[in-house]
Amino acid sequence: MPHVTYFGAVSLDGRLAGPGDDLAFLDLFEGTFPDGPYHMEIVIAGFDSLVMGATTFRVIRERIAAGLHPTWPYGDRPAWVATHAPELPRVPDAPDLRPFAGDVRQLVAQIDPGLTRTWLVGGGDLAGQFLAADLVDKIILGIAPALLGRGPALAEGTFPLRAFHLADLQRSGSAVALCYERAR
Amino acid sequence: MPHVTYFGAVSLDGRLAGPGDDLAFLDLFEGTFPDGPYHMEIVIAGFDSLVMGATTFRVIRERIAAGLHPTWPYGDRPAWVATHAPELPRVPDAPDLRPFAGDVRQLVAQIDPGLTRTWLVGGGDLAGQFLAADLVDKIILGIAPALLGRGPALAEGTFPLRAFHLADLQRSGSAVALCYERAR
Repeated sequence: MPHVTYFGAVSLDGRLAGPGDDLAFLDLFEGTFPDGPYHMEIVIAGFDSLVMGATTFRVIRERIAAGLHPTWPYGDRPAWVATHAPELPRVPDAPDLRPFAGDVRQLVAQIDPGLTRTWLVGGGDLAGQFLAADLVDKIILGIAPALLGRGPALAEGTFPLRAFHLADLQRSGSAVALCYERAR
Repeated sequence: MPHVTYFGAVSLDGRLAGPGDDLAFLDLFEGTFPDGPYHMEIVIAGFDSLVMGATTFRVIRERIAAGLHPTWPYGDRPAWVATHAPELPRVPDAPDLRPFAGDVRQLVAQIDPGLTRTWLVGGGDLAGQFLAADLVDKIILGIAPALLGRGPALAEGTFPLRAFHLADLQRSGSAVALCYERAR
């Protein structure tokens, strides 16, 4: 089984986005963590596979279409997309997209044995399913210094209290990076 | 106008409680911050007045009735309770409860001029009203190392992005305390 890390960024009120998938609050990370273990590209370089929900996939495609991302931001890593759609739309520069519908335990079991470091990209519903199955091994969380008031939470779902232990924290300007490991 | 601090504790997914007002996750703070500026009683000692929403008030009363709090935990400070009820139930050891209905700007204007350090206790709806009126000067936030999946968020409401700057952060075990000041 791969080691699954939920890496994401939230507002102070625990939201992944504002209303209408607004990600403007992410601008508050601009210039933070210029190097070191929480530099976004360095964190991403540590993953060899991705899982994401259908909404996250849609938002990324919309951002590419709007010119907000120049291209698929995750390279050629295999990316499993939890979706009920029978097939996924093509995305330029995303060579290895794999639709999946079903239990997240089966999704994780599908990940090639050679892939051991999986990034759970989001969103909150898929994270809730992973947490319900106790499949989240690590959380790396960027906290933006702002409140949104509306928008999806980091985790949504019904599961027992999932406790982690804090492995590390760092600040950069007004941004905070927290790294947690599952306390099983 | 008093200086208003939103002091509260959330789960990693930004929730003030789990389903059914469950506060079991607060046990994860047990033994953390044994002294220093983020010891709960030391933070509370810095306030001379309180504001809270009707749900927070009800939950506190229920916890007193259930023996989870021995008594009203906030001493004899004047406490404004945002409620549409015409009067508030009596609470032992809470000598100065003041019901309020209306705009939070008027609530803050009612606070006696001699009171200058107001604790916004919660919950998320009232905090959303304070944020909408840009009346939150400071946030002191304890982050518990756990996810809940359901429950009310730290802030709920419709307001422009409210950015703060990080004044301080500290860890104690797996708990984190963050202190933010409003960047106006």
